[in-house]
Amino acid sequence: MSTTLSRLLARISSPDDLRALAPEQLPALAAEIRSFLVRKVTASGGHLGSNLGVVELTIALHRVFRSPGDTILFDTGHQAYVHKLLTGRRAGFDKLRKRGGLSGYPEPAESPHDVIGNSHASTALSYADGLAKARQLAGDREHAVVAVVGDGSLTGGMAWEALNNLGTAKDRPVIVVLNDNGRSYAPTHGAIADHLAALRGDRLSVTVFENLGFRYLGPVHGHDLAALESALRTARQLRGPVVVHCITRKGAGYRPAEQDLEDHLHAVPAAGARSLTRVFSEELCALGEQLPDLVCVTAAMPGPTGLSAFGARYPGRMFDVGIAEQHAVASAAGLALGGLRPLVAIYASFLNRAFDQLLLDVALRELPVTIVLDRAGVTGPDGPSHHGMWDLAMLSAVPGLSVAAPRDAVRLRELLRECLSLPGPSVLRFPKGPAGAELAALERSAGLDILWLSGRDVLLVGVGAMAAACVDAAERLTSAGIGVTVADPRWALPVTPGLAELAAEHDLVVTVEDGVVSGGVGAAVIQACAPGARVRTLGLPRTFVEHGTREELLASAGLTGPAIARAVRLEHQV
Amino acid sequence: MSTTLSRLLARISSPDDLRALAPEQLPALAAEIRSFLVRKVTASGGHLGSNLGVVELTIALHRVFRSPGDTILFDTGHQAYVHKLLTGRRAGFDKLRKRGGLSGYPEPAESPHDVIGNSHASTALSYADGLAKARQLAGDREHAVVAVVGDGSLTGGMAWEALNNLGTAKDRPVIVVLNDNGRSYAPTHGAIADHLAALRGDRLSVTVFENLGFRYLGPVHGHDLAALESALRTARQLRGPVVVHCITRKGAGYRPAEQDLEDHLHAVPAAGARSLTRVFSEELCALGEQLPDLVCVTAAMPGPTGLSAFGARYPGRMFDVGIAEQHAVASAAGLALGGLRPLVAIYASFLNRAFDQLLLDVALRELPVTIVLDRAGVTGPDGPSHHGMWDLAMLSAVPGLSVAAPRDAVRLRELLRECLSLPGPSVLRFPKGPAGAELAALERSAGLDILWLSGRDVLLVGVGAMAAACVDAAERLTSAGIGVTVADPRWALPVTPGLAELAAEHDLVVTVEDGVVSGGVGAAVIQACAPGARVRTLGLPRTFVEHGTREELLASAGLTGPAIARAVRLEHQV
Repeated sequence: MSTTLSRLLARISSPDDLRALAPEQLPALAAEIRSFLVRKVTASGGHLGSNLGVVELTIALHRVFRSPGDTILFDTGHQAYVHKLLTGRRAGFDKLRKRGGLSGYPEPAESPHDVIGNSHASTALSYADGLAKARQLAGDREHAVVAVVGDGSLTGGMAWEALNNLGTAKDRPVIVVLNDNGRSYAPTHGAIADHLAALRGDRLSVTVFENLGFRYLGPVHGHDLAALESALRTARQLRGPVVVHCITRKGAGYRPAEQDLEDHLHAVPAAGARSLTRVFSEELCALGEQLPDLVCVTAAMPGPTGLSAFGARYPGRMFDVGIAEQHAVASAAGLALGGLRPLVAIYASFLNRAFDQLLLDVALRELPVTIVLDRAGVTGPDGPSHHGMWDLAMLSAVPGLSVAAPRDAVRLRELLRECLSLPGPSVLRFPKGPAGAELAALERSAGLDILWLSGRDVLLVGVGAMAAACVDAAERLTSAGIGVTVADPRWALPVTPGLAELAAEHDLVVTVEDGVVSGGVGAAVIQACAPGARVRTLGLPRTFVEHGTREELLASAGLTGPAIARAVRLEHQV
Repeated sequence: MSTTLSRLLARISSPDDLRALAPEQLPALAAEIRSFLVRKVTASGGHLGSNLGVVELTIALHRVFRSPGDTILFDTGHQAYVHKLLTGRRAGFDKLRKRGGLSGYPEPAESPHDVIGNSHASTALSYADGLAKARQLAGDREHAVVAVVGDGSLTGGMAWEALNNLGTAKDRPVIVVLNDNGRSYAPTHGAIADHLAALRGDRLSVTVFENLGFRYLGPVHGHDLAALESALRTARQLRGPVVVHCITRKGAGYRPAEQDLEDHLHAVPAAGARSLTRVFSEELCALGEQLPDLVCVTAAMPGPTGLSAFGARYPGRMFDVGIAEQHAVASAAGLALGGLRPLVAIYASFLNRAFDQLLLDVALRELPVTIVLDRAGVTGPDGPSHHGMWDLAMLSAVPGLSVAAPRDAVRLRELLRECLSLPGPSVLRFPKGPAGAELAALERSAGLDILWLSGRDVLLVGVGAMAAACVDAAERLTSAGIGVTVADPRWALPVTPGLAELAAEHDLVVTVEDGVVSGGVGAAVIQACAPGARVRTLGLPRTFVEHGTREELLASAGLTGPAIARAVRLEHQV
């Protein structure tokens, strides 16, 4: 790793400084930026490959457009590191994605150059549509609205909803900059990817964008600064809906990223112990042998969700549908109707996008579809949009849906098998991170695992990963003379009759979950108990949780053993 | 209305009977079907115009394809009446959309010819993708999968997620039949509509479908049986992804429907009293004058959601984005970022589609966007997918979101104004149906409206439309010697401190809401009360609710005055 002196970069504290540079200085600046990113991001973790791919594009954007007067929106905000560097946030990279430090996504609180804060894919074109409408109503014809979207984001339907609106809006033009690196995490599949590939080669007679009312400029070499600036200036002058098709290379200029075949170092993880994702992945492969009808669906993330191994071993039984959660779940309903046993693996927070499909296309039909939610609970450095803290509250209203929350690797394997043997829909949710130690049960009774048993004063209900913290709390409380039972319901939702009966045998019930507490498992437990039962529900507050380590964030939400013990003692004294 | 003898129709009890007819008999059959539909649907209420438009298309589909071996899927299932008629369900039309009778949508429980039960738009292509994958894995190359989608459904992003997958699936062909009548409820707007209009005239060099890997057949005259059969046969023989573009007229063959400019009698409502929708519509128009920044967004339903009048009066401030709920909400975020005050009006059950956008694009940014949910609670004849019973449970987890539930027209006007004056996001939800009588408060205290006050035994919390039933129950309970307070919180979520304090002054609290009880307002009330408070939560059970009248369905859920009184007495005696 070179430690190039950042002589040019050090002079850039705003886009004005960038525009003051001569064109011949820019390649050196780009090299300095790459060097800086590699150094900082390999240290902190974060999205590396995606940002290395947009160095020249971001420089060109900030030279042609004048942010913040002109608005530049970066879709799936993890491609905004270069933008952050060029808008005065260089120093912040020392605490990138750390508590109190720079966010890994655009963040309006950080800079007037970040109009939106976004991280889920395919939203930028919709924001752009709204902003352009507002500009038009204000009579502002001067400032441009520019949205940078990846080819992967075009597999998300929301982007097409926006294109459908933008293409006819001749009088409030939005400039769509398509950052086409042929990949999301994995290579982009599907008809749109094929079409873009065709455009990369021959100029077709009519592009899909022209069919939808846009002018098409491209393909533009995405690492040629002069070509980029020229195309963007033309786009601005057209004063109509336009797509600028830029061909970039993910990881460009950094050999380890360019040569990484999995995802071109899309994101650099912290190195670590064997993860629950890995445990899931291995068990799924084994199950593939025993269950010939088992098929898997991923929304463009076969690697991060642990499906790659299944896909390699059973290629005909694995479907990557693109960043298209709605389609992932509804097509799984189709797979189930066709007699197969589909499993959709997805990050917990992305299931938000498919609530309607899970409810009405899967649950209403009682179809045997299993959704596996990785990154459930507090995920850490990715911040408010990536915490998988909404799933339990959202799922608690879905009729006929069984939600399993394994506390450790052993239970993950066991509950995955149980999910796949159910006649109806199921969800399996587990957090990001190492598998951790096995937490054995003293006994299994009425479907519950009893993890601690020192008395009937307090029942601690530990949902999934929170079981360990409950056992820690129980130990402290028992020492203090309070009799505690700790139960892991294994099936978090719906609440089993066994849990309600056990609750009735205790003076106080405290539920602990790593999801938003409003309407979550704890709320379901209270509703399952007789009115007047003393139940206290612990979980994440109904607020957005910033980035930080999982441990830091759980601690500030009071979801550690000592904090749970304190909460119980306060309640017990009442 | 003619009462043509249904001589041919009477002989059709399955598609086999249809195929036995000679081509020259088909126009007479089509006329009989139209006559039958007009007679039955104008009596029962239901989707008329959309079904009159697909008479010939459905006949042709069932003659060319052999259902149920071949699968025919109807998107946005309200266009499936003709299909129902041709598959042996003629008699069921006497109880169309009535309790225990025929559903207004495809329904697998009714017939093996209904593989899916669907009513939200743009899902059929995803089901088709899943079914085609399942056929392929089973080695079945014989049977076709056909999905009929409207041009309106193509404004929904989910359809494009599916097209992206289907276009490359050369080895598991799906036949997409595009039923293009140029409308959803209202005329279809946007780039895709413009493109289809261009296709209707000249054959363009390349269509958007060809760009996405499909063969394109059309345009086909959608009321010419021979042309339709021929195109569908060709599509089948192509054995690859194909779009058959059929041009139909909504309401075809029935003059009142053809001449209705609003929506071509898309659906025939029961005639009735002044609705809450109307109250909302009028108030919104008045507010448009006072609030120059107020702009409105509809997802292809300006009429049914009450936005038409606003749009007519302030045309530049009204945006129809297509059947695109995700974009509707995210573009509203953009409008708010641009300094406007956006209001999105939508049916409650369609908000499911925009949960992620409401959470992360609106609430996370604390943007002043107001979502108005019509058809909240039990809606009646449209069945499980159209009951707006999920909104409260879904919204209870959204940080910083205020949810208002007006109990009558006066409160609707008042709360609409309050929503629009909040600095952050808000939701206003109200049921379908007549505005009903005003239910005045005895007093307003700590933000709550006190509707009844006879003692402190029981606090009844009536959410929105349930307030009236609570007053009815209170009257009965008071007569029986139980002292009752009835409070309408007006703001259902989050639970106000005032409500928690009032609850603490009563022996028993009973919450009543017309949404799913799991994780709804009642659950939030319990969580806001001290552990051990006696709170009983009444609402819709965590099951799907069939079609029927609103009164029937509320009664079977125990949400009437007498039933609430009974539940309170049982609980009070404990």
